Amino acid sequence: MLSRKDLFKDTLRKAAHAWKRIIELRLSEEEASKLRFFVDQPVFTDLHWGMFIPAIKGQGNDEQQQKWLPMAYKMQIIGCYAQTELGHGSNVQGLETTATFDPETDEFVIHSPTLTSSKWWPGGLGKVSTHALVYARLITDGQDHGVHGFIVQLRSLDDHLPLPGITVGDIGMKFGSGAYNSMDNGVLRFDHVRIPRDQMLMGFVTREGKFMQSDVPRQLVYGTMVYVRQKIVADASCALSRAVCIATRYSVVRRQFGSHNGGPETQVIDYKTQQSRLFPLLASAYAFRFVGEWLKWLYTDVTQRLQASDFSTLPEVHACTAGLKSVTTSATADAIEECRKLCGGHGYLSSSGLPELFAVYVPACTYEGDNVVLLLQVARFLMKTVSQLGSGKKPVGTIAYMGRSEHLLQCRCEVERAEDWLKPNVILEAFEARAARMSVTCAKNLNNFPNQEEGFAQLATDLAEAAVAHVQLIIVSKFIEKLQQDIPGKGVKRQLEILFNVYALSLLHKHLGDFVASGCITPKQGALANEQLRLLYSQVRPNAIALVDAFNYTDHYLGSVLGRYDGNVYPKLYEEAWKDPLNETVVTDGYHEYIRPILKQHIRVARL
Amino acid sequence: MLSRKDLFKDTLRKAAHAWKRIIELRLSEEEASKLRFFVDQPVFTDLHWGMFIPAIKGQGNDEQQQKWLPMAYKMQIIGCYAQTELGHGSNVQGLETTATFDPETDEFVIHSPTLTSSKWWPGGLGKVSTHALVYARLITDGQDHGVHGFIVQLRSLDDHLPLPGITVGDIGMKFGSGAYNSMDNGVLRFDHVRIPRDQMLMGFVTREGKFMQSDVPRQLVYGTMVYVRQKIVADASCALSRAVCIATRYSVVRRQFGSHNGGPETQVIDYKTQQSRLFPLLASAYAFRFVGEWLKWLYTDVTQRLQASDFSTLPEVHACTAGLKSVTTSATADAIEECRKLCGGHGYLSSSGLPELFAVYVPACTYEGDNVVLLLQVARFLMKTVSQLGSGKKPVGTIAYMGRSEHLLQCRCEVERAEDWLKPNVILEAFEARAARMSVTCAKNLNNFPNQEEGFAQLATDLAEAAVAHVQLIIVSKFIEKLQQDIPGKGVKRQLEILFNVYALSLLHKHLGDFVASGCITPKQGALANEQLRLLYSQVRPNAIALVDAFNYTDHYLGSVLGRYDGNVYPKLYEEAWKDPLNETVVTDGYHEYIRPILKQHIRVARL
Repeated sequence: MLSRKDLFKDTLRKAAHAWKRIIELRLSEEEASKLRFFVDQPVFTDLHWGMFIPAIKGQGNDEQQQKWLPMAYKMQIIGCYAQTELGHGSNVQGLETTATFDPETDEFVIHSPTLTSSKWWPGGLGKVSTHALVYARLITDGQDHGVHGFIVQLRSLDDHLPLPGITVGDIGMKFGSGAYNSMDNGVLRFDHVRIPRDQMLMGFVTREGKFMQSDVPRQLVYGTMVYVRQKIVADASCALSRAVCIATRYSVVRRQFGSHNGGPETQVIDYKTQQSRLFPLLASAYAFRFVGEWLKWLYTDVTQRLQASDFSTLPEVHACTAGLKSVTTSATADAIEECRKLCGGHGYLSSSGLPELFAVYVPACTYEGDNVVLLLQVARFLMKTVSQLGSGKKPVGTIAYMGRSEHLLQCRCEVERAEDWLKPNVILEAFEARAARMSVTCAKNLNNFPNQEEGFAQLATDLAEAAVAHVQLIIVSKFIEKLQQDIPGKGVKRQLEILFNVYALSLLHKHLGDFVASGCITPKQGALANEQLRLLYSQVRPNAIALVDAFNYTDHYLGSVLGRYDGNVYPKLYEEAWKDPLNETVVTDGYHEYIRPILKQHIRVARL
Repeated sequence: MLSRKDLFKDTLRKAAHAWKRIIELRLSEEEASKLRFFVDQPVFTDLHWGMFIPAIKGQGNDEQQQKWLPMAYKMQIIGCYAQTELGHGSNVQGLETTATFDPETDEFVIHSPTLTSSKWWPGGLGKVSTHALVYARLITDGQDHGVHGFIVQLRSLDDHLPLPGITVGDIGMKFGSGAYNSMDNGVLRFDHVRIPRDQMLMGFVTREGKFMQSDVPRQLVYGTMVYVRQKIVADASCALSRAVCIATRYSVVRRQFGSHNGGPETQVIDYKTQQSRLFPLLASAYAFRFVGEWLKWLYTDVTQRLQASDFSTLPEVHACTAGLKSVTTSATADAIEECRKLCGGHGYLSSSGLPELFAVYVPACTYEGDNVVLLLQVARFLMKTVSQLGSGKKPVGTIAYMGRSEHLLQCRCEVERAEDWLKPNVILEAFEARAARMSVTCAKNLNNFPNQEEGFAQLATDLAEAAVAHVQLIIVSKFIEKLQQDIPGKGVKRQLEILFNVYALSLLHKHLGDFVASGCITPKQGALANEQLRLLYSQVRPNAIALVDAFNYTDHYLGSVLGRYDGNVYPKLYEEAWKDPLNETVVTDGYHEYIRPILKQHIRVARL
């Protein structure tokens, strides 16, 4: 209900308060991060701690880390991550900002040569950051050495005014009434801004102007990428589980139709149409959580390998994390909106919490790699794997199943009765066969093109679908691995098994065309899966509330009247309404100027 | 960027100005409606003209019309439509508000007996309307006669204060920062409010308290429903075409990757992944427009039949309009968000116009019949049709194809080459076969249940899918009928044929599981359709801009920097950003209170 300005200022206030408590309570970095997480509103500190500091840690040399990190840790400087430009997002190598070395003064000259080279989107840039990590093309002696990071001071530490040559501001309103409007995503232009030579990251330029690659292997950057992406997948599970928690609880409270003899109406959660939309999303929230946990392990594994200069798993890890980022964020964005619709009309109220959850979540489909671009990266990896199948190079990790492609291209699903679809190995093989067949078909079709690149461009949509099949298989297989672990709590394992079956079979139903057209399953088997799915929904139903309570969200954090733990929805909706500023006066502001004149007008000549 | 209060007041100002111009220019009702349409912001007049007046026209008797309509036409009273309650939306028959006849005083006593009986959502109710059409249970002599409409005055015409016994207010913020926040969706409670006996619509109560049905056939209400729904379908086409226009124009401006030898990068519209997401939506915008035009004709046809007391087509018309409302609004809501994603990061800016287009559009999936509830109504009609197939009763209109179900259940698609998929009759038969087979399969499965109602509940999801197949067939067949008409303009017909093929084949691809699993087409034929689709995209590409320019939207109405007609996107985005209130000062409001103290703090003891 606040104006943009008031919202922004209020968020600054919260960030300052959080920082005050972090200092007073002497929180560790991890504890501080948790506290910021629960502020639950996009704000400049997200970028300072989540991008600026990690990038200096990961890309700065020892001297740079010693110089910049202490100031950053104490927030004596506030930093942001200025990569994206008005004209370039996905194509980072196409960034236009230049950093030209001037040997005369031993400085880099940072410059925005075109309008489209304006930095655009960086969070925390618009109104707050004193420093930025600026990505720019390094030019020495007229030669372009590609894009590198530079630490650039933007604002005076005395009066916060932009330094000479710097134009900086906020890029304006975004989706929703809250969401990212609490963040100062910014625009930034440089007019020949000079910085010292030692503020370039990952590589350096000698006093004479000779560019030297960093001796840190370029691959180390992948470590950070895996870290960021596992966080995004964990966030997806979190956002999805919030939405599902709200929709599930409200579906139990809400009743509509089906009253017998004046008794209560049916709880909407008991309708199969509600279950078939809601329960797959509930199952997805768990599935994404488990694959997120596994990614955490993968990050540790990759880090250890990188430290040992073992880069062998990188391509597979890169494809896997790119794919999981894409599939989980797309599914979550859609799911939040579906949960909103599952709450009927009341889901449209801000007090349901769902509109802003959607508005604040959807950029995840675009940032850190556009989801379609990422799928095509996965597809490239899949095509490469297929092309190397005969070569004796054995696919490992999440792509290991391709080593059994001969079997997978021929195998027949053995389901004869609906309950056969409960077996994890049956499901796994169906998903493996689908993924393998789609990849192999794409590879075959690619071979019909004389030019492989042209073929890749033409078949891009099919390739993206093959990538989705591969990623869904990963999620399914990690869910199975989870079920094979020791799961504490009596009966919990049984519930997770049900959710696993719901997740896999609902995907199978949604992508039935893939499975049937590729001959992995017969139409009859598809119908049996659907039948089994219906039975599974009835098994989820009695525990649906327990399964969302298990996410353990407080009402305060959930921020939804519809999702209240106590189910006291209607009185609280009613209460909440009266808090709207429009209700401050009984006769509305504007009545005398705009309503009364209409009501009191004497109309003689109108044709109405 | 406005606060709720300022936004609301600003909208009142616009409505008052529009009314002033309507009077001054002596606009006809139709012209006035167009002018209001272009104000393009939800406001109380939408309900006054779109619901209150039509309902009095349709449900009021002659005396009521003579009394109320002149005042309403001159806006000496302002009315809204108070049906939905906090606890009841879809189930109108379950409304709890009561209208009890008191023979002592010859009045109805309108009362809200429970919290959930509070009227909730009616637009224009919260802060503006002087009158409401209130739907309440008629009680006479202790007997409940079900839900009827009553004209109830809410606010004084002198000072706009709520009348005694009436509690009324706004229900609070909704999705988005603009969208429906310009509307005073309201809450309303009655504490024994008395109104004269002659303010009941559709039927009356005698002086003695005896309830008499109206002699106007109940079926006439369907006329209004067809009218409202054809308007919703037309609006869907309109909203969708706006989003598609923005995304298409920006996809031509935006370039990313693919630069050769320093030349310009590739326009994103040239990527197949962009085309396969965008062009089916472009085709849908046209498809929905044509089916909307046909619905307009259908409304005229139904009106004539109703006047001649011919109710024979009503069930088919009801199913058809319910289904089209559901399918077109769901598809449009999803499509607007897809168009936003197709604009990459910049689609997230409010200045793209897409976030608010989405926020203002999505309620269409819920109001005037929840989309899932409507699909189940269609499914009931389909099941009834199937059950009567042997009875000699010939299905007519949009369900006529069921009369050929014997053929459709056996026919084999004759496609052998990709170009065979260009033939409208091939496509039509495939869609007819799919719809017929899905309905017949559902009917068979229903027969396995001893209790039909229980079966309907259990199979609801399958039934809803069968309904979607039926409705998509209607849209496809109306597109074909359009192509068979005289289409003016050289080459236009050819473009529409291409769009038709894109629409139908992209649906076929999306629902491949339906087509292949039901044996309508083979997997090979599915792959050929996909191949043809790719070729069609290349044919849409050269005319894509012309096809969206044809919607003829002004930049002002489109309200999108990304969708500008002149393509001058980047300079205008840049310009637009500086208008944000946050940019009014260089050093941000809040710096001294919340940022400077952080930067200047001396931290000694933190563990960070």
